[in-house]
Order: sequence, then structure tokens, then C-alpha cells
Amino acid sequence: MLKVKLFDVDFGEAHVILNYDDAREFGLRPQDRIKIANHHGSTVAIVNITDAFVKKGVIGVFSKIRKELGLKNSDTVNIELVGIPLTVELIKKKLKGDKLSADEINSIIADIVNKNLSSIDLAAFVSALYVRGMDMDEVEALTRSMVAAGQTVKFPGEVYDKHSLGGVPGDKTTLLVVPIVASYGLTIPKTSSRAITDPAGTADRMEVFAPVVHNLKSLSKIVNKAGACIVWGGAVDLSPADDMLIHVEYPLSLDPRPLLLASVMSKKIAVGSKFIVIDIPMGEGTKVLDADFAHKLAADFIELGRRLGVEVECAITYGAQPVGNAMGPVLEAIEALKILEGAREPNSVIEKSCAIAGILLEQAGVAKKGQGYEKAATALHNKSAFKKFKEIVKAQGGNSNVTIKQLEKRVGKFRHVVKSEREGYVTQIKNREITMVARAAGAPHDKGAGILLHSKGGDETDRGKPLFTIYAEKKEKLEHAKSLLAKLKPVVVEGMLLEEIPPSSLISRR
Amino acid sequence: MLKVKLFDVDFGEAHVILNYDDAREFGLRPQDRIKIANHHGSTVAIVNITDAFVKKGVIGVFSKIRKELGLKNSDTVNIELVGIPLTVELIKKKLKGDKLSADEINSIIADIVNKNLSSIDLAAFVSALYVRGMDMDEVEALTRSMVAAGQTVKFPGEVYDKHSLGGVPGDKTTLLVVPIVASYGLTIPKTSSRAITDPAGTADRMEVFAPVVHNLKSLSKIVNKAGACIVWGGAVDLSPADDMLIHVEYPLSLDPRPLLLASVMSKKIAVGSKFIVIDIPMGEGTKVLDADFAHKLAADFIELGRRLGVEVECAITYGAQPVGNAMGPVLEAIEALKILEGAREPNSVIEKSCAIAGILLEQAGVAKKGQGYEKAATALHNKSAFKKFKEIVKAQGGNSNVTIKQLEKRVGKFRHVVKSEREGYVTQIKNREITMVARAAGAPHDKGAGILLHSKGGDETDRGKPLFTIYAEKKEKLEHAKSLLAKLKPVVVEGMLLEEIPPSSLISRR
Repeated sequence: MLKVKLFDVDFGEAHVILNYDDAREFGLRPQDRIKIANHHGSTVAIVNITDAFVKKGVIGVFSKIRKELGLKNSDTVNIELVGIPLTVELIKKKLKGDKLSADEINSIIADIVNKNLSSIDLAAFVSALYVRGMDMDEVEALTRSMVAAGQTVKFPGEVYDKHSLGGVPGDKTTLLVVPIVASYGLTIPKTSSRAITDPAGTADRMEVFAPVVHNLKSLSKIVNKAGACIVWGGAVDLSPADDMLIHVEYPLSLDPRPLLLASVMSKKIAVGSKFIVIDIPMGEGTKVLDADFAHKLAADFIELGRRLGVEVECAITYGAQPVGNAMGPVLEAIEALKILEGAREPNSVIEKSCAIAGILLEQAGVAKKGQGYEKAATALHNKSAFKKFKEIVKAQGGNSNVTIKQLEKRVGKFRHVVKSEREGYVTQIKNREITMVARAAGAPHDKGAGILLHSKGGDETDRGKPLFTIYAEKKEKLEHAKSLLAKLKPVVVEGMLLEEIPPSSLISRR
Repeated sequence: MLKVKLFDVDFGEAHVILNYDDAREFGLRPQDRIKIANHHGSTVAIVNITDAFVKKGVIGVFSKIRKELGLKNSDTVNIELVGIPLTVELIKKKLKGDKLSADEINSIIADIVNKNLSSIDLAAFVSALYVRGMDMDEVEALTRSMVAAGQTVKFPGEVYDKHSLGGVPGDKTTLLVVPIVASYGLTIPKTSSRAITDPAGTADRMEVFAPVVHNLKSLSKIVNKAGACIVWGGAVDLSPADDMLIHVEYPLSLDPRPLLLASVMSKKIAVGSKFIVIDIPMGEGTKVLDADFAHKLAADFIELGRRLGVEVECAITYGAQPVGNAMGPVLEAIEALKILEGAREPNSVIEKSCAIAGILLEQAGVAKKGQGYEKAATALHNKSAFKKFKEIVKAQGGNSNVTIKQLEKRVGKFRHVVKSEREGYVTQIKNREITMVARAAGAPHDKGAGILLHSKGGDETDRGKPLFTIYAEKKEKLEHAKSLLAKLKPVVVEGMLLEEIPPSSLISRR
């Protein structure tokens, strides 16, 4: 019998803390599982051992266990060692390279969501999936389990959706695709992420116009009103298992294919999507470096969609440099709003948006095969997409009449223009390096921070001509961003002659 | 700039705690690495994010970081995101199946010991070794790294050692092997473990006679005095990297071959052993189920020894039932002491001890090839091993004149005799099941708890004849142990006829 001491902290796992003496008395080691019981019932917890927080005879209990057993301070509980959970054996089975059944995958996902597995177990599971992979039966079961473990919503009629695998800075196309598609009466309940490693995520961009933190009920209301939404997925809780696995994938920088597929598709299935376009940006600095891998991923997404009763099309897009000129939430919001208001550039943003929206319009039968792009462009030109965008902003609680001028006031006051040191051509804008500079300047946390490109890849430039401007809300962040320029060289300018064989230095030595 | 709040707890990793707002401001996520710096210098820490412990502008700092930067409460520090450590990339390399160089393995082990890797990283490393394995170059490098990362000691002259892979309850042979070998003047600085899943470990058994918690300096003194020791390895800190990896292997119940080899050998090399016998118990309930696996392991140990300049011999021993009759620290101490005092049984304990000691005596040239067993038995019969054992006990600070009678007073007062329900033969004593009963009775924490077998496998028995006695120090633990009997059936008694084909029940139905 141990006396309870409550720690009102949610560490995300079912941890308890025991004193060294008690642990020896009960024959327990760190990470052992125990059954902890009172008159309310019993649950399983993971043992931590330290003398720092609890005295002999006391058990430290965190939020999850407290709630499950309705515990108060000084309550008494009984504990008992239980074996390693079946799901840890299943993780081991996958480590060995065996195929998991749908039931087995279900129980792993259920244990993850119920916080019965520790981050050590999750790291082993992610490692197993990285090394051993999964066949499509398993990926299908994984996706279905993730959907079942989270919340779902149903909208009347067909539901459309798009997703980008990301990796390209400045990709604000979702802010255009969603209103274009919705302007034709299609339902598109878009959930998006905040930036993890980018200058801005779609949720960060949209947040410049309207609140993006909505739960599933609020999301339903918005979509029922405007036919579409652009909200932050993190608050909607569509695939909690996925969120917990990402917590482990991220520090290891592992992104196993089965989890990539299930992560994307589970969130789409959860909102009832029937037609989905997956944007696969390809090129240096993205996740997809070559066409073979892009085609393989596309085939997997399409096959997984078929198994789940969803029509998936994939768009392999050019991702070797930023989309458009703006990076950072406010700068990108301005670029998108200008296009919605009628601007005919930057071309890369408009082309990509119309291409992806066009596929969805063709899937829906709104446009005939081959005419989707035109139909999408029409919605931009006749401002019906702009009108729809305002409806969405309003439904999400934002100011639908916000002007470019108002937004421009929110751009960072501290600025630094980077000029070309020579005459020549912009041969490269490096995704990762330009991102690092934008983030150093404060993006995405400082919404007015970021970068505006004045030249794109292929453009001619002159000595002293501005290449890009860095914007920051804080002086020291601007300085930090500037300090990275010499090392990172995010924009490369070269002459028309890229390489001489043999090099002229060799020639001159002769 | 953040204000320091100290948490004087050693969580074993270089963790700091940030507030949500600060984390967003700095663009940090859980498990990100930051450089944390003050005027003393800088170090790397792993980010945890919560609002529970620290307010905005405050950073929670645990022992490791506090010590490294000499921090006090309310000191200020600067933080900055740093990338994923190189060693995490190396773990990923092993996950991909690539071979690691000695330098790469060194840096992983160094980062483990310096607590720069999280348990998520360690779990991925253990998973990688489990799936991908290591070749002998890598295992050799791993062993050398582990040695280099811990403390080492040198004794004058050759050093002998033994190790058992374990898994057999009641194996008190080390208590006999060490004094036998040392009685011939050989140096044998034995470090042992406490029981993790057994009724007693060698350190638990020895603790009945003398203190076993000694640091490396104290170990040296003991060995210089008595020529030998039997101490707990946990206090000696010979292979801290191994200890930290076990912390992750244990909850996953993974024991990858490269870590098994390096774990055993690193601790032997650290005390300067030149001749080592590895005992590989084989049979149901042990880690080694068949001769093929035993031979493979033996070959690996011998090859690893060769590379490290150490002569290894392996003894594959019968492990399908307990060694001797006693299980539990005091009961086993009594059994060992009786043999040292001259008892000629139980045979299994004496045979195994003399066989293993004999190999070491032959390695040392004390006995000619084939005569080691005899030589070892002589040391038991002429009491020179007993004399040496007393010297060791005295050198470790114990009472070298302890008597069987005194020890018997320490045996648990609560007893339960389990009798045979039928006439027949003991066909099986199940290692795992008898262990669970002994542990339920309180072993090894309650030193007087355990089990004494009255019959061993193959013995004839009668209805009502005692099979074994359970001893406990606490009544409720005896009850708990008794309650397991019906389910576990640790001792199986069957008639001479084990199976009838077709079964008689089928015949009688005809």
C-alpha cells in the first residue's frame, strides 16, 4: 500500500514515481509496468525511480493516472508488477521483420493513444517501420487504426481535399486552391500544419487573416457556412496517434514511408474526403530528390486511396526553389491576397495553384478533362475565389475586409537588402539556406519577419542590383539573419559560363 | 536571455524545461537540442516544453547542466537551436544497415556517457543493433569504446575471470569458483550483478556474507589483500555506457548480440582480465535454447577475446533446471557454505563449480590439460577454498566466521511445503515458473525468502512426499507465492508413461 502524491503535470505517458527503497521492496526497475489499483478500479503505469520527489511509502502520480482512478492526495493504492505489454512484443515482431496483422496494428495504435507505451517503445516502433517498412495491407490497417483512434466528421455531399508533402519555402498555394475549389460549390475542409522547419506553414499564413485554432465542432460550423476552411490541424485532434508518433520521429529525423502515408491519409479520411490531390514537390532541398521516388510515392498514395475508397491524384511539382517571391507569414499573406485581388504574378504561385485546383475541379466533373486549369484561373480572374476567400475568413472569425495596406503595416520594420556582387544570372536559390535565414530573422513566430525575393532562378542580374530583402520585427534577429549570409550563400549568382574544362587556371599555368 | 531555475534532480539526460511561449519565440520543439551558454562556457541540452514548472522567461535546468555551467538560481543564460547531433545521424546510418567505423562508434558511446543522447535516441540505437547487428570489427570497436568510457584498473600479474550468461535460478557457482581459483594464488576480481529477474544474483548471495557495494578503489584494495573479490558491479562503474544502454534494452526486452558481447567483455577488460571462462547455460527457460546458438555465441566470444588479446574459453552448461536445491540469497548462501565446509552435495553445484574453476586452472597452467576439475575438487576437499573464501569475506568487511546455524536463523519464518499429488517422477522443474514463485515470496529483496527443492528432475517421488518448501519473511508474500502455484505448476510430476497414443480417453469412448 502506497500513499498518493499528485503531480498535476501531463507528461504524455502513464508515469508514476517510486522511491528507491519501495522499488527494491517490490522488485521493480525503471520502465517496469505496474498495475496500480484502488477501489475505483485499476490501470497500468510505467515506473520511474528517484528519491528526489517522493519518500518511502509514497507514489508520485501524474495527471493521466490521477484521472483514471479519481485519485486525491494521500489516497492509498496497491501496486503489482505486470509483464511487458503485448504491444511491445508486437513492436519486436516488426523489428524482426514480420508482417503485422490488422488486429495487431490496431492494438499498437490503441496503446499509443491510451498512452500505455513509453517514448522508448515508440522510438523502437518508428525504428522498426523505418528499417522493415510495411506492405500495403499493413499501411491500410495503420491508416484505418489512426482514423479509428481519433475524431471524425461527416459533411453532406462529396468532400475534396489537397495535401502537400512540403519542403518548399513560400508555398502559399493552399490559400488560393481552397477558395478556387470552394467557389465552384465544392466542400473542402482543409486542415494544415504550422511550420516546423519552414519560414511559414499554411496555418501560420492563414492566421494573418483569421484565427486558425478551431476544434472539430467549430471546423464543422465553418465548413457548413463557407463550404471550406483553412484551420490548424493540431487543434482538431483528427489523428492523435500520428501526433504522438511525430513527437518521436522529429528528434530522430526519421520519416518512415508507412507513417508518411498513414499520417497524410488518416487525416483526410477523418474529415470524409473522397477526392484528394497530393502535391509532391520534387527537387534539391525537398523530401523527394528524384522522379523514381516521386513516382513510387505517388503509386503508393493512389493504391492506399483505392483501398480506402478514395480517389487520389498526385501532382509532382517543381520544388527546387521557393514558390513565388515571399517567405514568412505576413509577406506570404500579402502575396496571396494580391493574387486574389487580381494580380497576374508571381507566375509560379498562380500556375501551381491553378494546376492543383484544376485537378480537383476535373475530379468533381466541374471541368472537363484538360480544362481544370482554365476553370481554376477563371475563378481567380472573375474574383469568385476572392469572394469565397472572404467568406472563409469571416466564417473563421477574421476580418474579411483586410487590405494590402493594413497587412503591409505588419511587415517587420527592420530590413536589409542583399545585392548582387556581380553581373550574371541567378543560378540557384537554395531552399534550406534561404529558410534558415528567414527563420533566423524571426519567421514564423514573428509574423512580419521573412524574406522577399527580387530575382528568381534564371533571372538576369547586375552588380549592385537587389537580390532579396530580409525583414525582421526585432533588430537583433535581423543581425542574426545577416550574420548567416556569408556562410549560407542562399542565392547564387554566376556568369553564363558555369564551368570551363579544363579550368582556365590550369590553362594559364601552362 | 532566460533566467535559470534549478531542479536538483539527475534525470540522466541533459534536459532543460522551457515555457510554451518561449519555445515558440525561439522556434523550438520538444526534443530539440539547444546550445545553452553563460560566461563559464556552453553545453548542449535537450528541450522539454511545459507550462507546469517554469514561467515565461525562465529555463528549468537539471543537475547535469547546472554542474557543467556552474549555474545558480536566477543566473541568466542564452540559448540557441543547434542541429541534430552527428551521433543521431550515425544511429540512422546503422538503422539503414551500414557498417560503422571505430571512430563513429567511439563518438556514439562518448555521447551516451556524456548524456547527450535522449532515451529516444538510445532506443533507436538498440533497435538498430537488434535488426542490423554488427560484424566483429564493429563489436571490437564497441567493446573498446565502452572500456575507454569507463574506469579501469590494473593488477600485478595475470588476471582471471568468469562470467555466466545467466537465466538459471540457484546458480551459486561463482561463490565456489572464485575461492577455488584464488586458493591457487590466481587473481580473480569478480564483479557481479544483482538479480533482475532471478530469485538471487551473485551480488545478492555474497551480500549475505559481506558488503558488496565497493567502488573501484575499494575493489583494488580487497583484491590486493585477498587476491579476489565478489562485489556488485553496479557500484564499480566499469562500463557506464553499458549501464545506460541496459536502461533501454530492459523495457523493450531486447538483448542485441553486439551489446551482449560488448557488455560482458568490456567489464572484463576494464579489470585487466587475460583469461576468461564464459558459462553459457543452455536449455528451456534460459537465454540459449539450442546448441547451434550456443556454439555461435561461444565462437563470437572467443573471436572477440582474440581481438582484444584475451584468452576466452566457453563452457556450455546444462541449464534446463535450477543448479542445486536452494534459491534465494540466504538459502543459496547456506548451500554454498556447506559445500565449502566439506559437504559432498548437491552434486550439480559441485560439478559445475569444479568444471569452470578447472578450465581457469588449466588456462593458468596450475593444472595440466584434463586435470583442472580434479585440482578444483581438491581445493574444496582440503578446505583451501574455504580458507580463501573467509579471506575474501573478511577483506570485503564481512564476518568470516559466520556459521550455518547463524545463517539458518535468517531464513524466512513463514514456510509452506508443497507435496507431490501422485506417485511418479519429477519430469520438469520449470526455471521461469519456480523463479516467479520465489520472487513472489520476496526473493531477492527479502534475503531470507526463497525456495528449497527436495527433489530434482529425474527423482522418483510418492504421493504426499515433499517436493519443495517456500520460505518468506512476510506472511502476505508467502500467501502471494502460494496463490501462484496452481497456475504456474513449477514442478511437474508424471508417471513413467508420459503419453498414450491414441489417448485412453479416446479408446474408452469407443
